[in-house]
Amino acid sequence: MEINPNDLKPKDVYKLLSGAVIPRPIAWVSTVSKDGINNLAPYSFANALSGDPPTVMFSGGRPNGNNKDSIQNVLDTEEFVFNIVTYSLAQQMNISATTSSPEVDEFKEAGLTPGKSKLVKAPRVLESPINFECKLIGTFDISGGVGPGSLVVFGRVVHMHIADDVLLPDHKIDPLALDPLARLSGPSYSKIEQLLNIERKNWGADVDPKKK
Amino acid sequence: MEINPNDLKPKDVYKLLSGAVIPRPIAWVSTVSKDGINNLAPYSFANALSGDPPTVMFSGGRPNGNNKDSIQNVLDTEEFVFNIVTYSLAQQMNISATTSSPEVDEFKEAGLTPGKSKLVKAPRVLESPINFECKLIGTFDISGGVGPGSLVVFGRVVHMHIADDVLLPDHKIDPLALDPLARLSGPSYSKIEQLLNIERKNWGADVDPKKK
Repeated sequence: MEINPNDLKPKDVYKLLSGAVIPRPIAWVSTVSKDGINNLAPYSFANALSGDPPTVMFSGGRPNGNNKDSIQNVLDTEEFVFNIVTYSLAQQMNISATTSSPEVDEFKEAGLTPGKSKLVKAPRVLESPINFECKLIGTFDISGGVGPGSLVVFGRVVHMHIADDVLLPDHKIDPLALDPLARLSGPSYSKIEQLLNIERKNWGADVDPKKK
Repeated sequence: MEINPNDLKPKDVYKLLSGAVIPRPIAWVSTVSKDGINNLAPYSFANALSGDPPTVMFSGGRPNGNNKDSIQNVLDTEEFVFNIVTYSLAQQMNISATTSSPEVDEFKEAGLTPGKSKLVKAPRVLESPINFECKLIGTFDISGGVGPGSLVVFGRVVHMHIADDVLLPDHKIDPLALDPLARLSGPSYSKIEQLLNIERKNWGADVDPKKK
């Protein structure tokens, strides 16, 4: 099928794009508003971008033309925490995804514990095994569509909390122990069930699905 | 474990970050150089960013201080194609990931077919079921680390090629039919084996792992 995005409704373009670029990692972004209210929301238009310096990003739309609460809080405070959502935290993530007014503290709604961060005021999700404390380093505005567009937020990771039980020797992380929730599209998510190891130098090797 | 990234070697920070933010979608980026040589390389610090307007990004490091060939080609030509890597294309993806000089055409190395694009000069990967033709709309420079940093490239999707056999009614894409390769870290990849459906309105619902 050949598709010119201009010929479709924006929501249909969104369905195609979010259905094609999968699986996506989830940035579970915790922030605090300038009025001191904690906020927590998941973003899957998100990723790491660089290890040196350690940099992450997430992108949020502008429902009704306004920035999402997380984005507004990042712009106001220049800080956020990028928490990892595990499979076992799927329901709490889902509760935190519900659109709510800025006065709502999604930590309370979802029954999660806001943990003290080391270098930022925004709380971290204590139930999550990995929390990256971030300082805002820039934004990229996406506009020119039918609606009000999106804003991409870039953060420098200034401190990492990593649970010992997901760490392997030599600064590796065990993907099956971490058991992250992966975003697909619509109501669908997935998880990592087995690893496929592909050695880069070994061009002729067959793909070797390997259970842990 | 509490980690200040400044206390670690950059490669260890990279391992932690790329091991934590998983699974990542893979942008298999095809470009053409200003001298007319095709280039193909995978990037997993990549994602969709917005459906309206349709926008994607990928981030590439600067080995030896120079932009990667794909990035340099995007800067020179302001165009690229974002192809989706399926599980069955894992070996070809891996061959295209090998660092090689700008004169090398990774389509030839990997035995892939450069297909004619509709609105950009860069070829698309005919063997991939989804190709998004993109025009460069901006960049974000990541610097301030020990090494030469990275460059994030943003593209507007101007044309979509989507194979009929991965399309469902109502502009949905079938994740199991698409069977995308997911990036973890080190030599590890994964695939989508089952869907987990979580209805956003149904707060009290149990997580319901559902095989297709």
